Amino acid sequence: MPELRKDPIVGRWVIISTDRAKRPTDFTRESVKMRGGFCPFCYGNESKTPPEIQAYRPQNGGPPPQKDTPGWTVRVVPNKFPALGIEGNLNRQAEGMFDKMNGIGAHEVIVETNDHNATLATLPSKKIEDVLWAFRDRILDLKKDKRFKYILIFKNHGEAAGATMEHAHSQLIALPIVPIYVSEEIEGAKQYYIYKERCVFCDIVQQETEADARVVAENEDFLTIAPYAPRFPFETWILPKQHESAFENSSSHMFENLAKAIRVLLNKADQVLDNPAYNLVIHSSPTQDSANDHYHWHIEYVPKLTRTGGFEWGTGFYINPTPPEEAARFLRAASVEEAAVAG
Amino acid sequence: MPELRKDPIVGRWVIISTDRAKRPTDFTRESVKMRGGFCPFCYGNESKTPPEIQAYRPQNGGPPPQKDTPGWTVRVVPNKFPALGIEGNLNRQAEGMFDKMNGIGAHEVIVETNDHNATLATLPSKKIEDVLWAFRDRILDLKKDKRFKYILIFKNHGEAAGATMEHAHSQLIALPIVPIYVSEEIEGAKQYYIYKERCVFCDIVQQETEADARVVAENEDFLTIAPYAPRFPFETWILPKQHESAFENSSSHMFENLAKAIRVLLNKADQVLDNPAYNLVIHSSPTQDSANDHYHWHIEYVPKLTRTGGFEWGTGFYINPTPPEEAARFLRAASVEEAAVAG
Repeated sequence: MPELRKDPIVGRWVIISTDRAKRPTDFTRESVKMRGGFCPFCYGNESKTPPEIQAYRPQNGGPPPQKDTPGWTVRVVPNKFPALGIEGNLNRQAEGMFDKMNGIGAHEVIVETNDHNATLATLPSKKIEDVLWAFRDRILDLKKDKRFKYILIFKNHGEAAGATMEHAHSQLIALPIVPIYVSEEIEGAKQYYIYKERCVFCDIVQQETEADARVVAENEDFLTIAPYAPRFPFETWILPKQHESAFENSSSHMFENLAKAIRVLLNKADQVLDNPAYNLVIHSSPTQDSANDHYHWHIEYVPKLTRTGGFEWGTGFYINPTPPEEAARFLRAASVEEAAVAG
Repeated sequence: MPELRKDPIVGRWVIISTDRAKRPTDFTRESVKMRGGFCPFCYGNESKTPPEIQAYRPQNGGPPPQKDTPGWTVRVVPNKFPALGIEGNLNRQAEGMFDKMNGIGAHEVIVETNDHNATLATLPSKKIEDVLWAFRDRILDLKKDKRFKYILIFKNHGEAAGATMEHAHSQLIALPIVPIYVSEEIEGAKQYYIYKERCVFCDIVQQETEADARVVAENEDFLTIAPYAPRFPFETWILPKQHESAFENSSSHMFENLAKAIRVLLNKADQVLDNPAYNLVIHSSPTQDSANDHYHWHIEYVPKLTRTGGFEWGTGFYINPTPPEEAARFLRAASVEEAAVAG
């Protein structure tokens, strides 16, 4: 008998198929493979992107590094085809009964490494940490711009997950509005807090640690779990163990451990699911409310294993063929070599 | 400059790219093609599906038709691999802080025609009307079962849209809960009604008819539009012009005109978008609140033209590369031959 489970934050019910549970090898999918060809994110092609916003360049006592030249380890550039434009004042308008505003926002690309053949999973955790610091730098800079209400950081890996470039990169979009799922998640967490006087994510961290059935991995600062009511097979969340509402407020110690947690999860998933395409999204508080008691930032990872049909987008109601306990068991069992995760 | 637009029902903001608007031919996609092979939905293979729940069989004065034999025009069978089980009592339970219930529900398949090579678009509208009557019959029957709170009817056409069978069919899922987007849509409509004392969909029908910029087609009972803030390129809604909260409460006159509206839309879209995979979902009131002043049933059509990335599922925030005015212009211009739509 399948089971209906409710997400405790937003109240979304999902169907978990327990009878005909799908194992990793039951999914037909394509592994992400490199195709090569000209790449504007590689060394020497810096002029093929818009001028860089920020880059980390190791200083070796030589002459000061030049912008838009090789030698960087992480590089942030504006998206060449931005979804939103950075210039202008926000202008909210009515169109009869409808509401619109001009598309003010920032759309940036964080190139995670100069190595075209690397993926976020194959980088040493020290390098992943640098990517996280770049996220933080960009958030702190963009937060100064009062036109923006939310800064969204996400990663599409592989064409099936929406990536158009194969060179390892993440994206940042600063928005003049709070996206609807984010505000629903925050509203749900707020309701829980009003009722219980506790953060719902803190409660999840505690219960999942005790139950242990859905734990994928853990380190000093982070718990990696298959959530109780996942929409997608092998959906996985990385949660800070201590309450913290915004990603950018994390300590350097936390960034170190987050990099390790990301590396462990990505390597486990690559092993179990054979290098799937995936999406990774940082869920964090809106920029103008970045420290509060009810919301708890976290990362959501979803490998692209299934096609979602009309059912899902039309209703928000998901059928998940893999119980999270099964997914967690497979991911937990995958051993990530020390060498592979050494920072 | 791109534009941010807000859906007036649920309050979802979407980005509409106005600069680099994508035209129909800009989307890379595969047209839906028939592959053939053994099909359990064809005449003579009735024993390969679970026993039929209902079928329309023209009576020609001969002996009474036998169940599970050829001769039907529309046939409803249980899904062979149901997402939910029909037997048992609903059993809601806590699991620590989490909530679950056993997966009670109905999952049925409506085979829309006996002709393996037909699609809903190529059927005469009289036959589409029969499919709509089958939906209604099933809803009225399942509404008697008080375990169910919502009956969802949807169609996945083409593999890219989640279809696993190529023979034309729709699906019905009866649920013991109201899916989250549906309840958000109803809640949004309710809020609008409280504020304005008018139905938000009735207001949309009126404004769109007057503005005319997003109208795709229209007949006596239905208005077909590209919505103001669509999530997807060429997303299209079919709305009854008169307020009616539940699909199944429509008059026979309305079913006749709905069949025509569906046929016109599908043929226009097949022409403009070269037989795309698509999803079609009926949005209707929950079964226990099927007549009310605030909610207005309608159909949403979305061709599968783009991959949605991490951005979208993580945030509910969509980037739509085709303004609805453009989509409507293309669809409006496509001429559907009279012969092709004759009932």
